[in-house]
Amino acid sequence: MAIDGAARTPSLWAWGFVDRFPDEAARRRLGNQARMLTGGAAPALLALPRDEDARVPAPRLAPPPALAAIASQDPRDRAAHAYGRAYPDLVRGFHGDFAAAPDVVLRPGSAADVAAALDWCAGARVACVPYGGGTSVVGGVEPTAAQREAWAGVACLDLERLAGVHEVDPTSLAARIGAGTRGPALETALAGHGLTLRHYPQSFERSTLGGWLATRAGGHFATGYTHIDDYVEAMTVVTPRGTVATRRLPASGAGPAPDRLWLGSEGALGVITEAWMRVQRRPRFRASASVKFRRFDDGVAAARAVAQSGLWPSNCRLLDPAECLLHQVALDGSSVLLLAFESADHPRGPWLERALELARDHGGAVAGDPVISDDAAAGAREGEAGTWRQAFVDAPYLQSALVSIGVMADTFETACTWERFPAFHAAVTGAAQDALRRTVGPGLVSCRFTHVYPDGPAPYYTFVGAARVGDELAAWREIKAAVSDAIVAAGGTITHHHAVGRTHRPWYDRERPQLFASALTAVKRTLDPAGVLNPGVLID
Amino acid sequence: MAIDGAARTPSLWAWGFVDRFPDEAARRRLGNQARMLTGGAAPALLALPRDEDARVPAPRLAPPPALAAIASQDPRDRAAHAYGRAYPDLVRGFHGDFAAAPDVVLRPGSAADVAAALDWCAGARVACVPYGGGTSVVGGVEPTAAQREAWAGVACLDLERLAGVHEVDPTSLAARIGAGTRGPALETALAGHGLTLRHYPQSFERSTLGGWLATRAGGHFATGYTHIDDYVEAMTVVTPRGTVATRRLPASGAGPAPDRLWLGSEGALGVITEAWMRVQRRPRFRASASVKFRRFDDGVAAARAVAQSGLWPSNCRLLDPAECLLHQVALDGSSVLLLAFESADHPRGPWLERALELARDHGGAVAGDPVISDDAAAGAREGEAGTWRQAFVDAPYLQSALVSIGVMADTFETACTWERFPAFHAAVTGAAQDALRRTVGPGLVSCRFTHVYPDGPAPYYTFVGAARVGDELAAWREIKAAVSDAIVAAGGTITHHHAVGRTHRPWYDRERPQLFASALTAVKRTLDPAGVLNPGVLID
Repeated sequence: MAIDGAARTPSLWAWGFVDRFPDEAARRRLGNQARMLTGGAAPALLALPRDEDARVPAPRLAPPPALAAIASQDPRDRAAHAYGRAYPDLVRGFHGDFAAAPDVVLRPGSAADVAAALDWCAGARVACVPYGGGTSVVGGVEPTAAQREAWAGVACLDLERLAGVHEVDPTSLAARIGAGTRGPALETALAGHGLTLRHYPQSFERSTLGGWLATRAGGHFATGYTHIDDYVEAMTVVTPRGTVATRRLPASGAGPAPDRLWLGSEGALGVITEAWMRVQRRPRFRASASVKFRRFDDGVAAARAVAQSGLWPSNCRLLDPAECLLHQVALDGSSVLLLAFESADHPRGPWLERALELARDHGGAVAGDPVISDDAAAGAREGEAGTWRQAFVDAPYLQSALVSIGVMADTFETACTWERFPAFHAAVTGAAQDALRRTVGPGLVSCRFTHVYPDGPAPYYTFVGAARVGDELAAWREIKAAVSDAIVAAGGTITHHHAVGRTHRPWYDRERPQLFASALTAVKRTLDPAGVLNPGVLID
Repeated sequence: MAIDGAARTPSLWAWGFVDRFPDEAARRRLGNQARMLTGGAAPALLALPRDEDARVPAPRLAPPPALAAIASQDPRDRAAHAYGRAYPDLVRGFHGDFAAAPDVVLRPGSAADVAAALDWCAGARVACVPYGGGTSVVGGVEPTAAQREAWAGVACLDLERLAGVHEVDPTSLAARIGAGTRGPALETALAGHGLTLRHYPQSFERSTLGGWLATRAGGHFATGYTHIDDYVEAMTVVTPRGTVATRRLPASGAGPAPDRLWLGSEGALGVITEAWMRVQRRPRFRASASVKFRRFDDGVAAARAVAQSGLWPSNCRLLDPAECLLHQVALDGSSVLLLAFESADHPRGPWLERALELARDHGGAVAGDPVISDDAAAGAREGEAGTWRQAFVDAPYLQSALVSIGVMADTFETACTWERFPAFHAAVTGAAQDALRRTVGPGLVSCRFTHVYPDGPAPYYTFVGAARVGDELAAWREIKAAVSDAIVAAGGTITHHHAVGRTHRPWYDRERPQLFASALTAVKRTLDPAGVLNPGVLID
């Protein structure tokens, strides 16, 4: 995993850094793999877009002189802030369409700058979009055309200057961290203290602490405390009405938890500027193994048994046969359960031993020898778990490269109770396969569990199919609607860790109790009376 | 622990059941112990109050005929719903003062009854106080005189008929449970399925699921998932504007978590009628030990090491020397750390072994042999941990008995970060001792950790002193204000698990960010436009 990157150039349209985009040979290999997965001829390499061909509309307004020092209206800068990194974002960027570029990019250097920016937005009727790493896959940073038209302009509030690990409390294991801090910089700074936040979403390389908090990001651990929510000790949020700073507390029972109102608020209720986060000592001991199952259902039962055992493994990821194929973990039609335990304090052998017993009880066969190590970094790189880790980090680059060879690949994720899972999985997989067939012909649909809870799994689905180059989005929209309908109808959540944004909003509205929507609307009116914060997100 | 009780009579003024109130010999023994703790002569046995001497004001209004079937205006019934079980509640009840009795007690048999009751209250300007077990220690169920005067009447909404375990999902380990279900009935019903909620607040015998949810009750486990918040899968809440039912989900990242708005809402934002709760298999394996420390500070360091180890013991309770004396756990001036691990799945020997290593590293001496058992119930009753368990359950009975011999005993609790704890503890203990000395003469102040988190402990303080019989509350108020001031000034929370109610409200207002108060007020106006729900609690 690359952990530097300050001096590298992010791509205008694709995931991540320009210099990590797959080269021609790699794209050709990818084309051949895609043919194996979806049938048909090997997809053709399309010409890559050039930055100078990006079509960026002229800005509709200029920032006031008081904000000039933190404002940019450079077209490339505005284009780079037009989208997140969802499939429709990649496709539009690939075709040079940056119609959604904000009119101005503001880079506050302090909480006071954030307040000044919000003041201007409220006065000038400018929509304000808080922006972390720009890695949203749900339209979280892109007002729709109708939303843009309803405002005099759109300001992107890029928090990259509010970055850094400002303070470390080694006794309480907590650190005060700027919201704009990206994953690699955050972990590098903590490593200097022997600490780690241990939060590795797939977007780690580019996404920020503030974005994780605003979207309730899912984390590294497959069980136990893993959502970023669980690691927040206190937060500072700037709203148009003033600043909210919660108290550093390990726990409290005083009324509804204040932080929980802003966790998941997706920039609609305030701008998170910094947080005290619970951190950990860097793990030293690791124990891991892979278990093969001939039947996916047996793997599900084993994952459930481990999730309900109280062993709390750091990894308990079940891959179905298609997922094993995609990630080259197993090619024989098996399902694979990746199990790992890690600790800064004690060897984890006894934990793994019991988890493997549970897996064997459900028909699993341990593949190879378990890897037991007292040097976590080395242990993590060995075996199938290591193969998996690399594929995980590379996946967003591959998705972008697939766009450039006319292949559609995307993911969606959810959570549901164990009792519902078999019918749920059949309904969702069926909906995805049907929609693929209807739109672009047969494709691949795979499933893995990213997280497992005592009461249910968080299944993560990938679909791959041919793209109709130039008209990619019609098919994607039909597939996305079909799977989202199936998820909500079968009792899942529209998102376990990708957030709601504008893409999931119709299904979120179905999932969310109406009176809770009314409550959030009342809060929005109180904190953001002019409604400038990320219009259309969560609240109308 | 008594787990039946349906046919037994709860005391009108004291904690729990009449037949479990300490007899004369026990009260005499208690008097002698109190003398040892606080000095002076042995306190005298006062005459116990008789129910027929209770002074209950006449009701100010009658319920409408439509609610007659669920309404009671019987004076004893109204008196029994006047107070919670805080020290001031016991004292007033002991002296026959039931001035705060509600005008009517309503016992809804369905969510529709709850809605009908709320309709009547809004129309007739009647304050509505949701009521679970009546065990609040913070004035949660008692409108103040000013609050009572501002309304045409007060209705106590006793949810005891909305009780029972209605549905069990053994696959997902979840159960749908009525809000009015008390601890013993809840555990008995789940035990029939081999399951347990494993939530044992000190009020367990009398308190209810709905009360736990409304107050974010702290639970059985000293580490890890323990607050009732963590065990909620979905909730149903009736508000004056309609019903909110959240979706059964193991986790979700879709916007701010809806359940978190009502968890801790203390009856001010709706009436919780039922919830899907995450349950567990009944533990079978147990491993426990006690560790003695000559210095309290070393015990603190050991507790912190265990809390940060990732071992997640079910018990990790540190008792200071005064606490050891109170609970007869050690009489030699030591501090004691009680450690226990339990599991339904695997023996916990290796976990305990490592925790004891950590304790020894910090100067601890293991007292006796660790108890390792594969029959949890038997294991729990042995040794110092067993002594401790019995004292825990009996404590509220003893507090009531102390009132009847002119001794003041009360507790308060909080949480703060480890880094702050030494100065915090000195400030809070000092404030308590000073206030005791100022008001009633020297007394005892003890401290234990009820819960420990990676970033800080939850200290729980007990104070004991002589009472000025007939004028007990002036001293109590001065002590309560002094320790609450110290807690909030030193960076703690005004409550870790006792809730805010009316008693903690002034300090809650200092602790809570002002804009969060504004947000809650906006929510209250939306869900409860007439403001009938538990007036004065959390929101003005």
